[in-house]
Amino acid sequence: MRRNDVEEINSILNKWFFICALLMGLSLLLGQAYAAEREFNMTIDEVKIKVAPGLDYNVFAFNGTVPGPLIHVKQGDEVTVHVTNNTSLAHTIHWHGLYQTDNWQNDGVPGITQAEGIPAGDTYTYHWIADKPGTMWYHCHVNANEHVGIRGMWGPIVVDPKKPTPLEKKVTKDVIMMMSSWESKYAGKFGKGAGPTDLPDFFSINAKSFPMDQPLRVKKGDVVRVRFIGAGNSLHAMHSHGHDMVVAFRDGLPLSEPYSVDTQLIYPGSHNDVIMYMNNSGRFIFHDHIDTQSTNNGKFPGGAVTIIEYAGNAHEDWYVWKGKDYDPDFFYSESLKKGYGMFINPRFAGEPLQQRRKHRSKKQR
Amino acid sequence: MRRNDVEEINSILNKWFFICALLMGLSLLLGQAYAAEREFNMTIDEVKIKVAPGLDYNVFAFNGTVPGPLIHVKQGDEVTVHVTNNTSLAHTIHWHGLYQTDNWQNDGVPGITQAEGIPAGDTYTYHWIADKPGTMWYHCHVNANEHVGIRGMWGPIVVDPKKPTPLEKKVTKDVIMMMSSWESKYAGKFGKGAGPTDLPDFFSINAKSFPMDQPLRVKKGDVVRVRFIGAGNSLHAMHSHGHDMVVAFRDGLPLSEPYSVDTQLIYPGSHNDVIMYMNNSGRFIFHDHIDTQSTNNGKFPGGAVTIIEYAGNAHEDWYVWKGKDYDPDFFYSESLKKGYGMFINPRFAGEPLQQRRKHRSKKQR
Amino acid sequence: MRRNDVEEINSILNKWFFICALLMGLSLLLGQAYAAEREFNMTIDEVKIKVAPGLDYNVFAFNGTVPGPLIHVKQGDEVTVHVTNNTSLAHTIHWHGLYQTDNWQNDGVPGITQAEGIPAGDTYTYHWIADKPGTMWYHCHVNANEHVGIRGMWGPIVVDPKKPTPLEKKVTKDVIMMMSSWESKYAGKFGKGAGPTDLPDFFSINAKSFPMDQPLRVKKGDVVRVRFIGAGNSLHAMHSHGHDMVVAFRDGLPLSEPYSVDTQLIYPGSHNDVIMYMNNSGRFIFHDHIDTQSTNNGKFPGGAVTIIEYAGNAHEDWYVWKGKDYDPDFFYSESLKKGYGMFINPRFAGEPLQQRRKHRSKKQR
Repeated sequence: MRRNDVEEINSILNKWFFICALLMGLSLLLGQAYAAEREFNMTIDEVKIKVAPGLDYNVFAFNGTVPGPLIHVKQGDEVTVHVTNNTSLAHTIHWHGLYQTDNWQNDGVPGITQAEGIPAGDTYTYHWIADKPGTMWYHCHVNANEHVGIRGMWGPIVVDPKKPTPLEKKVTKDVIMMMSSWESKYAGKFGKGAGPTDLPDFFSINAKSFPMDQPLRVKKGDVVRVRFIGAGNSLHAMHSHGHDMVVAFRDGLPLSEPYSVDTQLIYPGSHNDVIMYMNNSGRFIFHDHIDTQSTNNGKFPGGAVTIIEYAGNAHEDWYVWKGKDYDPDFFYSESLKKGYGMFINPRFAGEPLQQRRKHRSKKQR
Repeated sequence: MRRNDVEEINSILNKWFFICALLMGLSLLLGQAYAAEREFNMTIDEVKIKVAPGLDYNVFAFNGTVPGPLIHVKQGDEVTVHVTNNTSLAHTIHWHGLYQTDNWQNDGVPGITQAEGIPAGDTYTYHWIADKPGTMWYHCHVNANEHVGIRGMWGPIVVDPKKPTPLEKKVTKDVIMMMSSWESKYAGKFGKGAGPTDLPDFFSINAKSFPMDQPLRVKKGDVVRVRFIGAGNSLHAMHSHGHDMVVAFRDGLPLSEPYSVDTQLIYPGSHNDVIMYMNNSGRFIFHDHIDTQSTNNGKFPGGAVTIIEYAGNAHEDWYVWKGKDYDPDFFYSESLKKGYGMFINPRFAGEPLQQRRKHRSKKQR
Repeated sequence: MRRNDVEEINSILNKWFFICALLMGLSLLLGQAYAAEREFNMTIDEVKIKVAPGLDYNVFAFNGTVPGPLIHVKQGDEVTVHVTNNTSLAHTIHWHGLYQTDNWQNDGVPGITQAEGIPAGDTYTYHWIADKPGTMWYHCHVNANEHVGIRGMWGPIVVDPKKPTPLEKKVTKDVIMMMSSWESKYAGKFGKGAGPTDLPDFFSINAKSFPMDQPLRVKKGDVVRVRFIGAGNSLHAMHSHGHDMVVAFRDGLPLSEPYSVDTQLIYPGSHNDVIMYMNNSGRFIFHDHIDTQSTNNGKFPGGAVTIIEYAGNAHEDWYVWKGKDYDPDFFYSESLKKGYGMFINPRFAGEPLQQRRKHRSKKQR
């Protein structure tokens, strides 16, 4: 190569370097600008939801739904949430997974980060920055064993990262599965249940037991991200037939060495994401392999069971979900396409219960 | 280097390249050729097995044994299995872990991939390709909580990979441990038990509780692969004294970064393999560290417990397994040396129960 | 480069190589020299400890404390422990995690590595080499379901590695958390409980349930290593608010690819370490997210709960631990600064029970 050539190449590279640096600077500035302020109003209401065939359940529901509304924001966003407690007991909201950097007073734990729960009838405001990317969630931290365990006080948060990984960029369908369990004995009894010797007998994905939940409908070529959240008191071993799950995120953060499983353990408090390549047309069950939990109080199939259905798959007469009334947003897949904000799925709404403030006025934490 | 040298080297490399390409092509063709067709006959029988001292258990047993026969094939093999249901209830077989690529109708899930369970008295044929290598297993998918949980309807599949990893090539002894639990209250009551509030009280490896199971006999220098399968409804925390376990495979596939533990969590549906270097002569207990499960209904030691015994170790009078009647195939180590096919260990056979078709003719899924 | 230069460089490198080899040799010799002999006396005593408000518990306590004394040694140290059994039942000590290389007779398992448990009144001596570095522990192996599960027969071992990892060198505060559970029904009944169908109702860190345990006090910039040990029969899902945990060690050994979580599953027998960067001033709850276990028999908060408190954090009147009597050694952080030896925290001592040898003289394993 001649000296002239070298100089020319040098000069071209210099120009490109300058342009790149400029673009990087601009995008950093824009990134700052994107740190939006977002303000949401939430309520806590006493409602009765349908969990399983024959199982109606009294819950304290965020905005009247279980799971509660999806909060979808971008990393760095400043979030304000006004919470109005329409129930007869005190509650808080803990924003599970977020760091609350230099902001511990907004962590939502009574007696530790705030004086007490939000009293019945009051409104309380939380401020926080979406300082950790990924799948997060929120839940009450008053009497968590009962309120979170069996009273449905939880909902999902998705914080889009500033720098997505190459793997998550491939995702074509986003899915949230909040796993939990229920104690039928206490379905109608606020203030009771979820002690360490109480045994759950119903199990659900997004608060519905099979067959009251929904299929996971995909098309061939889809790359599905399942955001598993261990919302209740039980462990679950979700087993995907016909497909591996690439375990890619642990509690929001990407693994440097993702690995494949077909049975993923979900434990309370965890919020781990898997990536599934939809390359195997047909119909496959996707279920809790703690098989007692794939039942409705012992009746199989039930509980934490769904079915992967490929587009174009014909439904035979004997198919258990033939003619199923389909809700494409059951796993929040539609809501997650709609940009940032708070999203309520009316399918998750319960029937209002008469507020019973008088009988439950004593303070608690 | 002179021009002539360069040309000569070039010419040599070209030849080698040609030869390599030819060999690769040939081996691909041979690889295809090796995709054998394998055909097996299985039955499902009602038998009574001995699980623990004083605990006989009514089960639906594949070929009359629990665990069921070992199916050992090579990746790519085409497998046909004819299943004859000699019991009084419907059943299916699900081939756990296999992808069933474009073959979902053979996945063995009633109401989803086949109309119903195989009715009592019928024969049903499954076809599938061994499209995922590694440790797999099969089990019924009708009333899985009971049939898989406490009726012994499971057996191992080993699919040898086309390209073994360097680590698995070192293995000198292959071992299968299918973990499960039992509810003594329902031992004699088909159709009952394994609900979410039923509590297991017996625990086993390959369907035998200590001391009715067998030692893991090794010689110094052995490299043992333990294929753990979570076959029942319980979690187990297997703890190896004196040795680490290199966690090397998750649900059949190799980890890029194996890691060492001495306590490995086994959960329902999982089929994870560990590698153990046998470099510490003597005798070491290998047991479930959920210590309630190292008992027979509370009597310690019992349950999911075995002992690593090195060749040459002398047995003192006080040794709990002195003079033990030894079955070298209890963990399938002998069967796994015999090439491909289906292998039944007669030690796992139960005593036939009177078939009771009349009393149990109603359909179920 | 000229020939003379080359020779000179060669000569310099040769000198350095010689010096390096000499230093390596010396350090190996010194390494050997550092393999200290350490001798400890332990007792096993029947005492009553306070686990939770209203829950006193009869235990077999090593040196009268639960957890038992910390044994802190260096990798390669030769350890001798004389154990005097002052209780009315037989016991052993198993040194959990240590390889016992060519030393299986000191593994402490009755009927397998020693003839029987140490009889009431006897003294027995164990010899072992600290052949595995990291977080280890010791526990009885007689009737382990009861003695380890609910009778407090466990204590921590820390084996400092010869070659610490860069990550562990950063640690400024060392913390041990031994997780366990209790059955209030059997608190006063030696010989009963901890069967597979017995359900625990109290949960603890280092044998104290919230609020009887202690805060984890840190200062900004601390790098905390939490050595989690699954000592009891329950699983725990420890969730750290405001901070991630870098999972860095599994059963003593460093992971090649540490990863971050905010909820860490602790299962019986496991001894996994996490690293936490204390960079978020304030006050954060750190608790078992199996929320039934963050209660004292159903009363929330209780059980396996502590609070991360940053130095300088002011305590409001409503703070649940305002004016808490602080024990800086509750998590062994002070003991672990004191070099090698055996360390007893008098806070963990129970009140002596009348020895009841007469009523419990029958042999058992």
